Amino acid sequence: MLSEFDLIARYFTRPPRDAGAVPLGVGDDCALLAPPPGMQIAISSDMLVEGRHFFPGADPSQLGHKSLAVNLSDLAAMGARPLAFTLAFALPSARPDWLEAFSAGMLALADAHGCALIGGDTTKGPLNICITVFGAVAPGLALRRDAAQPGDDIWISGTLGDARLALAGYRGEVTLSDDALANAASRMHSPTPRVALGQALAGLAHAAIDVSDGLAGDLGHILARSRVGALLEVDALPAGPVLAGHDLALRRNFTLAGGDDYELCFTAPPARREEVLQAARDAGTVVTRAGTITPEPGLRLLDANGRSLDLQPASFDHFTAP
Amino acid sequence: MLSEFDLIARYFTRPPRDAGAVPLGVGDDCALLAPPPGMQIAISSDMLVEGRHFFPGADPSQLGHKSLAVNLSDLAAMGARPLAFTLAFALPSARPDWLEAFSAGMLALADAHGCALIGGDTTKGPLNICITVFGAVAPGLALRRDAAQPGDDIWISGTLGDARLALAGYRGEVTLSDDALANAASRMHSPTPRVALGQALAGLAHAAIDVSDGLAGDLGHILARSRVGALLEVDALPAGPVLAGHDLALRRNFTLAGGDDYELCFTAPPARREEVLQAARDAGTVVTRAGTITPEPGLRLLDANGRSLDLQPASFDHFTAP
Repeated sequence: MLSEFDLIARYFTRPPRDAGAVPLGVGDDCALLAPPPGMQIAISSDMLVEGRHFFPGADPSQLGHKSLAVNLSDLAAMGARPLAFTLAFALPSARPDWLEAFSAGMLALADAHGCALIGGDTTKGPLNICITVFGAVAPGLALRRDAAQPGDDIWISGTLGDARLALAGYRGEVTLSDDALANAASRMHSPTPRVALGQALAGLAHAAIDVSDGLAGDLGHILARSRVGALLEVDALPAGPVLAGHDLALRRNFTLAGGDDYELCFTAPPARREEVLQAARDAGTVVTRAGTITPEPGLRLLDANGRSLDLQPASFDHFTAP
Repeated sequence: MLSEFDLIARYFTRPPRDAGAVPLGVGDDCALLAPPPGMQIAISSDMLVEGRHFFPGADPSQLGHKSLAVNLSDLAAMGARPLAFTLAFALPSARPDWLEAFSAGMLALADAHGCALIGGDTTKGPLNICITVFGAVAPGLALRRDAAQPGDDIWISGTLGDARLALAGYRGEVTLSDDALANAASRMHSPTPRVALGQALAGLAHAAIDVSDGLAGDLGHILARSRVGALLEVDALPAGPVLAGHDLALRRNFTLAGGDDYELCFTAPPARREEVLQAARDAGTVVTRAGTITPEPGLRLLDANGRSLDLQPASFDHFTAP
């Protein structure tokens, strides 16, 4: 059987590409990171549990990708440039085929973003993946949740709801063709963190969050921390390509409350609309304007005719969910 | 039931004491850390799994302490000054009494070391605690595993073996009085990370590691990475106060191969013995000299008369252990 040390050496140890930024990588009591001079370090940690964040038996390559993607998405939501990450995980057993696919999926995404694996921990236990990611952002430029201003536009990157639609397909809540399910499911299994867009928005947008638990709830965090409210044009929300073919009620529900899309929701002053659109073009990501920040607290939902909608979208919560 | 957000707000959110060092703490997509100018960031991540690293039903206050202590011990082994940590954990259910004790045990140790909780994640799942810790160390001064030099003294902080003795007591491998078990078990449940000693040794000692899996194996990591060997005087190893009352064979076995003590094993030039002893006095920690680094590879064990001992101490490995 592979020992813990063999496993780390074989699947998770590579010489750092940039020894200036990472003077010491995997294999000591700590890794050493040399922060870029004058920059702040953005830090996020996400834990993924089998049966809760992913299905038992999930494809290991996709799981490796997704585990890092959700963390990179947090850096994107701060406007930070990825530097490095640590990986701690518990596995029921050290299966070489699983580990090879898992590490390949994870390290391919890491390489695409220049994000070095610098350390971590492995142990035996129920499958659990915990990544902590580090990024660089200039002081004062981070996209904080508490920085939305009345009058700001509300923007959404990419499209929403296809990850939730795939979950509904798996659960039999919605009938989908095999092709439709496969397309929608790719959003759930292989989310694309909006890293380039986030960096392009630093210093341009005011507030940002990544949409992981559902837009209504996640935007709600911006509103609460910024002590503002919002008018949200529900029918202007960009539905995923599969969801877009479904009826209005489902589109509204899943764009508003579907989680796992890992798009960015951000606010920016109307005077900077052109710059926002240019930043999105430079980053290769579509962005859609879908509302306005208001001084009055609360989230008000509007239909395409500007009439109030009385929907009750529920965000996902790990301890109150069934 | 407590929601994830209530739980974080109630038990794990406090304003950062030092807003200069932590411009943004718990509650956004990322925390922001302002690195001390010119310093490198030492980073370590440890995952603790119920039934493997601690007993089911473990005292939550001690568990909170230990979860952070094992991470601070990694900073100590690099000579780094604690700055901050993130906490990600999975819980079967959000029980307020358990969470209150767990956070109190953890945050008391954090406060004692000026180490701010800056972010993390909570989710439902089999009990699993993953902490990532950040410390500051000046470039070139970190105590690396690859820095031992032939001729260096080998030093051990504190005492070894009582944590392993407690495990033997719980397992019925050794008969202990209630008092003896309680005393030995305090080393297992509430380890003391040697943070002050580690910092005092930075720039003075050559190599260091913390003893988590057993001295023979952990020293072996220094030897392998430094491409050196060692003569280790087994009977000079400082046995824990409870273990010290047991027979020679048990003392040898548990000081050599017992894990979970979280003492430091470090090497330093003989010319700096007085400085090492002064650093230990300043840090309030006893240190004991118990061997020498050799140019020839391999770990050779000696008895009190300098004769070779043929013992086969086994370090703990999570994937090859039963």
